[in-house]
Amino acid sequence: MGFIFIIMFNRLSALREQMRREGIAATIIPSTDPHMSEYVPSRWQTREWISGFDGSAGTAVVTLESAALWTDSRYWLQAEEQLDARDWQVIRNDSESAPTIAQWIGARLTLEGGKTEVGIDGEVFAESDVVSLKDELREQGGLTLRCNFSPFHRVWTDRPDVPLAPVEVQPDQFAGESVESKVERLRQWLRLSGYEAMLITQLDDIAWTLNMRGDDVHCTPVFVAYLLLTRTDTILYIDSRKLTPDVQTHLAAAGIKTREYCDVAKHLKKDCPDSIIIDPATTNHLIFAAIRAPFVRQAALPVASMKSVKNAAEIEGYRRAMIRDGVAMVRWMHWLDDLAASGEIAGESELSVSQRLEEIRSAGEGYGGPSFDSISAYADHGAQVHYEPSPATDRKLKAEGLLLFDTGVQYRDATTDLTRTIPLGPLTDEMRTVYTLVLKGHIALAQAIFPDGAAGTQLDALARRDMWAAGYNYGHGTGHGVGSRLSVHEGPHQVRMQWKPAPLREGMTLTNEPGIYVTGRFGVRTENMMIIRHHSTTDFGSFLCFETLTLCPIPTKPIRHEMFTDEERRWLNDYHSRVEATLAPLLSESDSKWLKNACMPI
Amino acid sequence: MGFIFIIMFNRLSALREQMRREGIAATIIPSTDPHMSEYVPSRWQTREWISGFDGSAGTAVVTLESAALWTDSRYWLQAEEQLDARDWQVIRNDSESAPTIAQWIGARLTLEGGKTEVGIDGEVFAESDVVSLKDELREQGGLTLRCNFSPFHRVWTDRPDVPLAPVEVQPDQFAGESVESKVERLRQWLRLSGYEAMLITQLDDIAWTLNMRGDDVHCTPVFVAYLLLTRTDTILYIDSRKLTPDVQTHLAAAGIKTREYCDVAKHLKKDCPDSIIIDPATTNHLIFAAIRAPFVRQAALPVASMKSVKNAAEIEGYRRAMIRDGVAMVRWMHWLDDLAASGEIAGESELSVSQRLEEIRSAGEGYGGPSFDSISAYADHGAQVHYEPSPATDRKLKAEGLLLFDTGVQYRDATTDLTRTIPLGPLTDEMRTVYTLVLKGHIALAQAIFPDGAAGTQLDALARRDMWAAGYNYGHGTGHGVGSRLSVHEGPHQVRMQWKPAPLREGMTLTNEPGIYVTGRFGVRTENMMIIRHHSTTDFGSFLCFETLTLCPIPTKPIRHEMFTDEERRWLNDYHSRVEATLAPLLSESDSKWLKNACMPI
Repeated sequence: MGFIFIIMFNRLSALREQMRREGIAATIIPSTDPHMSEYVPSRWQTREWISGFDGSAGTAVVTLESAALWTDSRYWLQAEEQLDARDWQVIRNDSESAPTIAQWIGARLTLEGGKTEVGIDGEVFAESDVVSLKDELREQGGLTLRCNFSPFHRVWTDRPDVPLAPVEVQPDQFAGESVESKVERLRQWLRLSGYEAMLITQLDDIAWTLNMRGDDVHCTPVFVAYLLLTRTDTILYIDSRKLTPDVQTHLAAAGIKTREYCDVAKHLKKDCPDSIIIDPATTNHLIFAAIRAPFVRQAALPVASMKSVKNAAEIEGYRRAMIRDGVAMVRWMHWLDDLAASGEIAGESELSVSQRLEEIRSAGEGYGGPSFDSISAYADHGAQVHYEPSPATDRKLKAEGLLLFDTGVQYRDATTDLTRTIPLGPLTDEMRTVYTLVLKGHIALAQAIFPDGAAGTQLDALARRDMWAAGYNYGHGTGHGVGSRLSVHEGPHQVRMQWKPAPLREGMTLTNEPGIYVTGRFGVRTENMMIIRHHSTTDFGSFLCFETLTLCPIPTKPIRHEMFTDEERRWLNDYHSRVEATLAPLLSESDSKWLKNACMPI
Repeated sequence: MGFIFIIMFNRLSALREQMRREGIAATIIPSTDPHMSEYVPSRWQTREWISGFDGSAGTAVVTLESAALWTDSRYWLQAEEQLDARDWQVIRNDSESAPTIAQWIGARLTLEGGKTEVGIDGEVFAESDVVSLKDELREQGGLTLRCNFSPFHRVWTDRPDVPLAPVEVQPDQFAGESVESKVERLRQWLRLSGYEAMLITQLDDIAWTLNMRGDDVHCTPVFVAYLLLTRTDTILYIDSRKLTPDVQTHLAAAGIKTREYCDVAKHLKKDCPDSIIIDPATTNHLIFAAIRAPFVRQAALPVASMKSVKNAAEIEGYRRAMIRDGVAMVRWMHWLDDLAASGEIAGESELSVSQRLEEIRSAGEGYGGPSFDSISAYADHGAQVHYEPSPATDRKLKAEGLLLFDTGVQYRDATTDLTRTIPLGPLTDEMRTVYTLVLKGHIALAQAIFPDGAAGTQLDALARRDMWAAGYNYGHGTGHGVGSRLSVHEGPHQVRMQWKPAPLREGMTLTNEPGIYVTGRFGVRTENMMIIRHHSTTDFGSFLCFETLTLCPIPTKPIRHEMFTDEERRWLNDYHSRVEATLAPLLSESDSKWLKNACMPI
């Protein structure tokens, strides 16, 4: 560890040297990229490079004499471990007493001699964040913000390049709609709204629009690019080295022009359409500042909403993938069950059982790797909501307690996401109560019927009602959209306590994943993917319902039967009978026998 | 009707004459007063005066050649009836195709010769509405807004004065907290927030702060005033003729200074504190423009939140009032039941049974009139959500179908609000199904247990889940706060589909009023008042629950028993046993016998 800390100290010194040279008193290093991605290519993992903290969420702030990292409670312990306490302070940004970044900078700069210029790299800040940051800094005794401070070009000497993984075509049979049709729908929207053009900056929106996939980002098959769509032209800004002949043909056939990725700002400055719509929440400041259109409308683009409603071919893709994934899951759960019964589970660990599942899955058709790093969390690790096992934390399993396993795949025809909490042996009464409450919440949401256009926030309490009554709750959302071979977290809709106004519509995917986390003891989460379907039309409007897509048994041993209603029992038995009928014909005799038992009515 | 229309035509002509004289091409007449009240003194009922439409919600817009009234669907029919179609167009502002006011004005002014100045009386527009209206008008080809156009001083020759009803003290025994203590809590808030002063403009906030009540407004015991609260002074702007010696003593004892109501703008211009917090959503434009403070913070004041959390004395007030009101309701329901059984109900009407209830209630202790105009809606009238019977619409009752009755009282110690849907004889199957679904929703919300600080939007679906599953829904909110001898609709919290971020806290009142409205046939709503109580504290935080305050039997005859769960049956039987135990000792033998029957377990 000492050696690592010396490297980190040298990096911090190099950054400060650059700050002094450019007259910058403080700098802010976020954890995103120029496209405001959730998972970012290594080139833009600057926060990890400078601090050593590799959690997915965190913002580093460095002054000439101090450094701090803002992160939320799930990463608090990890940050304390990974950062050198002599150089770094960890600030829990979901605590009420935590200073804002602007407040902290204001206080430091006063102590450090009253310099007042804060520098950031505008390429990795959303325009809307720059606007509010400017205001917040001004309130700190008039600090100013410079947005063209990009020290990592110099100080990060072995910084990775912009990724160059080749892109490929997502065939129409999986995409379900041609590029021409998508572009025409977006053009129609432009005409109706009265704008000349839109600039699409989110990588999954670009991949969806063009029916193309890439490999630039961990776990998400997107490629780094920008897409300018006008009423007459579609221009893809992408490094031309990524374009295989197949892709060139695909683009040419759809009338898409290409230009170099690095030229986007130059082009927008020189040759901008008369009126353009651009989303300041997802467009970085440098690109935004380059726009020279006489009229710039700042608002959400229609792409994310269009993408969130899946067509028939995409839905068929999920159905096929769920069968393949269900077969793999059953083989794995059977294996795990046998080990637990024989006691051999003691030879396995969180990581080893995770690797075993990947081996089984990767034999399946169209397997394209995980859609996120699996959470394999045994015993008290399960209470850390975003725990990911590493060699340093890997826990040996025992024939008792609960293994919380959250995992997903990028299949060629669908992205998946599921969680099972698996009993490895005897359970405590508390574990069984909590397991049953989570499953009751899951079933309540799965059975909901609701008006077309309801917001996810309105449905969230259905999954929580019974656990609230028993004094339990969970801090994360209950559901999110899932892409079609794209991001495993896809908006704009969600089911969560915080207000998300995006309406729920027929054809949207949604996870259903209530959980309860008992600190220091165990965690439970049960997650299936669902699709929103039409239920009925009455004098009171159109009503929607959910159909569960995931096909994988839900362990029934931990259930406290006396806490279940007849309706809940019926739902679970119906689900299991569907799982068994679909998967059994595809399984070996022994796996099929295990499945029959796992799907036995309760 | 013809005669009325001639009067209205003359009023419109007089207004247009004044518009021409001042060079105003269009004017907007809202339905509020300088305090953004829900119910307004007759002086400010200018929209009704100019249009003839007397619904509670509506905005009139007049150009030199056209006139239109925006109102929502509940008033659509009434507006069509009350307005002269030769002069007025009715625009349904909750229809998606309706033009906005600015769009409509833009289109008219183009037709009418291109004049561009719109005039409003800034006294009856919230500052925040003026700001957005200016933007919207500018987008209509550059229309401008003048905010000092107040023609009704001249054209409304017999316009009522600012009301002068005497004010009175709300004794500490009912208010539960002294004026000094409330003022000190507000001052502490000022000190913590760093402001010098706040201007309180909402009439119920002022009445709450000063423990005073008035009679300036229909159904709401408030008085017209402003209250300026600084770190050292409290100044009440009020017409001094309203101040009885008692009130003067009360104010002097609490250190409150008084100035004339009409001088508030003058004073704020001349003698404003250095920094002031003011709510642009509830402060009118003229007052806002008068503020000359070097620093003006625009945000919600803390008064509404403080007022919404009731203290022990206020809660005791509700409890006492509910017993008195329950006794009156039982006497009335018994009377109604007997008439229905004997067939004599045919001699009664919506209005006559409403008057009968008021006679019974007004004999009760501390009765201070209704808290809103009762909704007595028989048969298909029940499907009009805000139907209020008038001599013109009054419907004869029959010994069949449902009477929806929504009513409330201003008692000296509490404001009440309840709804019962009463069977007057045979019901259809549909009526019984709908009645049962509404009651299931009511019980689901009444039984909810939820985290401290949850927002009402999160709980709304609990009341709707079962009716959604059957294809029913309702367009209004599920619950609102109720004042302590103040407004029957009190914020900031609510339970409704639209997002209301105000958190639910222990001590808040809330109505529980799901409904279903079957157009052309009948309506059902069942409403009790509740108070939020602490339920439990666990490792997962603090949890709250509801206690029902209203004590009045809920008719059980319409219930479809097979649709009820055991839990719902238990809730209803427990509620009825509490109602009977509390009220029976206070009733005549015959009323008590009726109540015993009405409260029989199902």
